Amino acid sequence: MADLVRTGISLERQLLERFDRVIRKKGYKNRSEAIRDLVRDYAVAEDVEENRTVVGTLTMVYDHHRPNLSERLIQVQHHARGKVLATTHVHLDHRNCLEVVIMKGPSSEMKHLAGQILSFRGVKHGKLVLTTQGRGLT
Amino acid sequence: MADLVRTGISLERQLLERFDRVIRKKGYKNRSEAIRDLVRDYAVAEDVEENRTVVGTLTMVYDHHRPNLSERLIQVQHHARGKVLATTHVHLDHRNCLEVVIMKGPSSEMKHLAGQILSFRGVKHGKLVLTTQGRGLT
Amino acid sequence: MADLVRTGISLERQLLERFDRVIRKKGYKNRSEAIRDLVRDYAVAEDVEENRTVVGTLTMVYDHHRPNLSERLIQVQHHARGKVLATTHVHLDHRNCLEVVIMKGPSSEMKHLAGQILSFRGVKHGKLVLTTQGRGLT
Amino acid sequence: MADLVRTGISLERQLLERFDRVIRKKGYKNRSEAIRDLVRDYAVAEDVEENRTVVGTLTMVYDHHRPNLSERLIQVQHHARGKVLATTHVHLDHRNCLEVVIMKGPSSEMKHLAGQILSFRGVKHGKLVLTTQGRGLT
Repeated sequence: MADLVRTGISLERQLLERFDRVIRKKGYKNRSEAIRDLVRDYAVAEDVEENRTVVGTLTMVYDHHRPNLSERLIQVQHHARGKVLATTHVHLDHRNCLEVVIMKGPSSEMKHLAGQILSFRGVKHGKLVLTTQGRGLT
Repeated sequence: MADLVRTGISLERQLLERFDRVIRKKGYKNRSEAIRDLVRDYAVAEDVEENRTVVGTLTMVYDHHRPNLSERLIQVQHHARGKVLATTHVHLDHRNCLEVVIMKGPSSEMKHLAGQILSFRGVKHGKLVLTTQGRGLT
Repeated sequence: MADLVRTGISLERQLLERFDRVIRKKGYKNRSEAIRDLVRDYAVAEDVEENRTVVGTLTMVYDHHRPNLSERLIQVQHHARGKVLATTHVHLDHRNCLEVVIMKGPSSEMKHLAGQILSFRGVKHGKLVLTTQGRGLT
Repeated sequence: MADLVRTGISLERQLLERFDRVIRKKGYKNRSEAIRDLVRDYAVAEDVEENRTVVGTLTMVYDHHRPNLSERLIQVQHHARGKVLATTHVHLDHRNCLEVVIMKGPSSEMKHLAGQILSFRGVKHGKLVLTTQGRGLT
């Protein structure tokens, strides 16, 4: 198990009561878990900023009737070999596909790949999420 | 095929030249596709704001050694039945899992489900992407 | 002075060390102040989400040579009377003005006013910041 | 006056009708102005990304009873001399001040200054907006 330590923080009573109300509404069972989530989110934002290796998921919606698009999507992912871990495909309707590409790499490279894919004709919308590899945020 | 129309817009020459330089760098082949992407992104943001039915992907990283977490994750997804379309799982290392949950529903419901999942102990980080179902953005 | 309380949180040692390194780099003198900032930011986000009364600043850049624009900007701010607290104007160059409008009101009303102003011809760019009134976040 | 050019873009009829409905609701009088706003926003985002000289406004709320805070705020702004163009101060209540600092400089420097100010004890919340100098976006 991870090596837990305890730290004390001082807060104004009013702020703490306010925080407790909000996190209860969001479903948190206790204050420590809510603060750990804020701390981890802060650390992940810094990983991205500093161009460290992070995990990324690119969500995109595209029209699979568009000629050559599927081939181009596969090709560009293969050229980024070593970075793409998995791809999931969902048929939204007879024309529209949702695809989630799960990748690993420096944040700048993943932003570049995402930009490239979104510029393809037939890709209607897309968003990149950058998150942690998990290690060091245990 | 979709019913294409042509519309004219007037822009300052300097702004247009600037835009052309930026989109070329991002990989766009032509101006129409870049502007369509901006227009679609604007329309998707409004769908989310107005709580229409959209598609969402929740990316999360969690520690699968955490007792009962996998069961809770499956349970909460099942109770949101009809909304979860697919889930992809990637083993990042011996402790850390990445999971992408693909969902469909009103944007507020997906935000709620995402908040609930992120509050679970052992879920280290997560981000929700809300995008289009594709129809009407052809 | 505010009524300070102390609360203990448990974190994994590795995460805490990581957090300490990041906040030192950002200029924080101690951990409590950094965590208070995260907690306050979280509380402010909830105020905005719940459409409570918050303080907003709208930053915009516009071309003051555009006929009637200054009048329209003043007019729309006056009709929102009671909400606009102050306006600051900076001459960026002979054509371009930066204006910051400081407002107070429910978050949805300020988003509406901001959208209206940004739709005016001659307003080139703008962004709305929503923050706290300060009370209850002491 | 600026040198206006006209460009044609092709869009799917359904998408264009959708866009027209949304922009009317937001207050736009015509399609060209709405598209120009999207194009300018895209260009500004790239200026920020590429660390070009932009204009920034830092909105912060602080407790002016906090000893030495006002001095520290003034000092740090002066050391960033040449970048701070103006500051506006609003008394929110007997304790809480809102201050908007208007600056000009490379985007990374302004992010650094903002981070420094937000780390001060007594500064409760803050957000940085980065926008254009106006030139080239006429």
